[in-house]
Amino acid sequence: MNPEEFRRLGHMVVDWIADYRARIAEYPVQSQVGPGDIRAQLPPAPPDLPEPFEQILADMQQVIVPGLTHWQHPHFFGYFPANAELSSVLGDYLSTGLGVLGLAWQSSPAMTEVEEVVTDWMRQMLGLSAAWSGVIQESASTSTLVALLCARERASDYAFARGGLQSVPAPLVVYTSQQSHSSVAKAALLAGFGREYVRAIATDPAYALDPQQLQSAIERDLAQGLRPCAIVATIGTTTTTALDPLEPIGALAQQHGIWLHVDAAMAGSAMILPECRWMWAGIEQADTLVLNPHKWLGTPFDCSLYYVRDPHALIRVMSTTPSYLQTAVDMHVKNLRDWGLPLGRRFRALKLWCLIREQGVHALQARLRRDLANAQWLADQIRATPHWQILAPIPLQTLCVRHTPPILTDSAAIDAHTRAWVAHINQSGAAYLTPAVLDDRWMVRVSIGALTTEQPHVAHLWQVMQAAVAAADH
Amino acid sequence: MNPEEFRRLGHMVVDWIADYRARIAEYPVQSQVGPGDIRAQLPPAPPDLPEPFEQILADMQQVIVPGLTHWQHPHFFGYFPANAELSSVLGDYLSTGLGVLGLAWQSSPAMTEVEEVVTDWMRQMLGLSAAWSGVIQESASTSTLVALLCARERASDYAFARGGLQSVPAPLVVYTSQQSHSSVAKAALLAGFGREYVRAIATDPAYALDPQQLQSAIERDLAQGLRPCAIVATIGTTTTTALDPLEPIGALAQQHGIWLHVDAAMAGSAMILPECRWMWAGIEQADTLVLNPHKWLGTPFDCSLYYVRDPHALIRVMSTTPSYLQTAVDMHVKNLRDWGLPLGRRFRALKLWCLIREQGVHALQARLRRDLANAQWLADQIRATPHWQILAPIPLQTLCVRHTPPILTDSAAIDAHTRAWVAHINQSGAAYLTPAVLDDRWMVRVSIGALTTEQPHVAHLWQVMQAAVAAADH
Repeated sequence: MNPEEFRRLGHMVVDWIADYRARIAEYPVQSQVGPGDIRAQLPPAPPDLPEPFEQILADMQQVIVPGLTHWQHPHFFGYFPANAELSSVLGDYLSTGLGVLGLAWQSSPAMTEVEEVVTDWMRQMLGLSAAWSGVIQESASTSTLVALLCARERASDYAFARGGLQSVPAPLVVYTSQQSHSSVAKAALLAGFGREYVRAIATDPAYALDPQQLQSAIERDLAQGLRPCAIVATIGTTTTTALDPLEPIGALAQQHGIWLHVDAAMAGSAMILPECRWMWAGIEQADTLVLNPHKWLGTPFDCSLYYVRDPHALIRVMSTTPSYLQTAVDMHVKNLRDWGLPLGRRFRALKLWCLIREQGVHALQARLRRDLANAQWLADQIRATPHWQILAPIPLQTLCVRHTPPILTDSAAIDAHTRAWVAHINQSGAAYLTPAVLDDRWMVRVSIGALTTEQPHVAHLWQVMQAAVAAADH
Repeated sequence: MNPEEFRRLGHMVVDWIADYRARIAEYPVQSQVGPGDIRAQLPPAPPDLPEPFEQILADMQQVIVPGLTHWQHPHFFGYFPANAELSSVLGDYLSTGLGVLGLAWQSSPAMTEVEEVVTDWMRQMLGLSAAWSGVIQESASTSTLVALLCARERASDYAFARGGLQSVPAPLVVYTSQQSHSSVAKAALLAGFGREYVRAIATDPAYALDPQQLQSAIERDLAQGLRPCAIVATIGTTTTTALDPLEPIGALAQQHGIWLHVDAAMAGSAMILPECRWMWAGIEQADTLVLNPHKWLGTPFDCSLYYVRDPHALIRVMSTTPSYLQTAVDMHVKNLRDWGLPLGRRFRALKLWCLIREQGVHALQARLRRDLANAQWLADQIRATPHWQILAPIPLQTLCVRHTPPILTDSAAIDAHTRAWVAHINQSGAAYLTPAVLDDRWMVRVSIGALTTEQPHVAHLWQVMQAAVAAADH
């Protein structure tokens, strides 16, 4: 495709996306298709000859859109907000169109330096000290894996240069909470620690890691000759947005020389609000930190910010310097390939740069405050309504909700009722919510914060929820 | 930014990219800026208030473009072709604009099913049997890490569920060649094996892994009570595009129950040409395979194809099923979060789908054949010219070149000459080449295959090279 064809068809693509976004509220939020429905509409073999791009756009509308669950929909209250603000979308369009790659600083200097600047902008917006250096990774799962790999190497005196984890004198142990994200245990197992050496510490009634239990576990492991290696604390757990107390956890980490990694994937964005920063008091004691602007803040996936206090500990584990990647300026520049798993990287900083510039910090703050207020409004309605319960504190924008009709008394029946009414809503397409288990019982998460979600959409959701439980009762 | 503003500004972005691509040959290939030059032009703090998007576009032109090394330039012969074909760019624009996320099949069914279909199209295009299942990963580095993690778990009878790599009865060993990519050793060290248990097997005169040496190493390790775990073979090494012989390597892997992973990151795309498939004869004996359509084939980064013969071995290591990700259809669908490191994924299949459909298989094949012919043409010129040497076989599109003026006899002086003439070219902006070390001596890689590179551009390069060595002689 030559640049003039791209110009013509690119305008069509932009118009198509503009129309999609303008009309998104007309679609059912959750895709109504069944397994295999989309696949059955696609040719099983690739075309030998070119097809007109217009045909692809027609297929987008007729085949693909019905197969989408619409994350940008104002009635999307599932999982977490994965906002793709349109200014940030344009930033990513610039990146993709340029088609430049970062392997070394020299292979596109602006890519490295804009990433340095914009991750430092974010550091300032989050109220973090100048001791932190940032880099963009693919995802929080990846960042947590990188953190645990670095923790493993520091605790083993960089055993990768010798026998690796196959030769450590005492087994290394990782600590996290029972409410931490599934990616934390996954990262620990991928890093080779083994399930026997991963501790899921009990939580307090607010679902936050209990530092007394953590201390006991560390002392028990030390008494058995094990080596505490890393703690992964969460600011804003997935199920309830619980806040692990970083001050006592950080003190334990310091005392025992344990690596502290903080997973603030969703909630980290809220730290651009000064009034929220009490939630991660103690953050400066952490070694590493991850938060995802590709969630609530508004960049399209993928843009996961990974901050470290000691870049050398990261680079020592991740660095590669084959001859074909060496350049004359290596001593004077950041080579971001040494800051994570992949060698190549796209110009991901542009989408964050465009988001912050086109919106401005004040507007980003105002939007997050809107969502916090909407969550409190809905919580007030629910608390004031018989037979509805709020099951966990609401520091941010996620509510954990259950409806318990007086007629139902045993847990299994209430679980069935819960799953029935949430399925009723999701299948109807009127809104999208995520069922989850809390204290061994099903409940429903309401995650507020899609870009387009205003107060009337939340009021609509509350009507839909009340109608759904009535329908499920019959 | 609302959809109507996006429509207006999106057209501006498309026009800006169309203009950039149309005029790309006018830019020096390598950025002419020094370390810190771009950073110095950017505000150190984020803006509180919105800026017009037009100002961002002006900065793109004035600040960012001078800081780019232009990978889409017809005179780009560095590293490897990282083509971003404009039809594929539009596919990515669709993905970014939709802003949908894959966590589970249900969270956007079309994302999963288009990825299933298009990875199967590619499987057919590559001449692979139906025994392979594909998934898109971020990069070859990531894919090789995933492969080694799966190999580690299979060889240890899935020790992640017990004491992990901290409790294996006999150390596990990984084998690769001295010419394999730096990401292979990096992945092995990150997976925890330790440098003592990573073998860099010697290569033959064509820089391909020597299977006799591999066999000896395996037998030596077995005799010492070690456990051979994985072999990483390369089809198209980075330095010379050497081809490790998969048939004898696969036989050794089968004989000893060793996991065979094939890194065909760059060269894999060439397997859409039936006449190239002898290069990976024996591929069906491998367990896993990675190739990067975001290189020569033409999708923008990132689109790394990872094929496995046993999805269950992959899913067993990567799977997570917290309650908030469970859905009623889990038994009937692929949940691609269980196929790699990250939980979230963007709709990456669209860029590959658009590339294949808009180009058609025949045109993709024709372009790769053009590049192979251009490489042979340049090789013929070089071979026919005194004092120039071709240093390695040229199965594909990469030439390893040295110029040795008769006046220079010692290696250090020739190395200095080599580095001088390649630096002269790169700094001039007339073309971009990658210096690298082969047999402990510097040489220059010429990697042909940018989308826009036609035969006259290669002829121009040859003129530039001859002028550069003359200039360096003075």
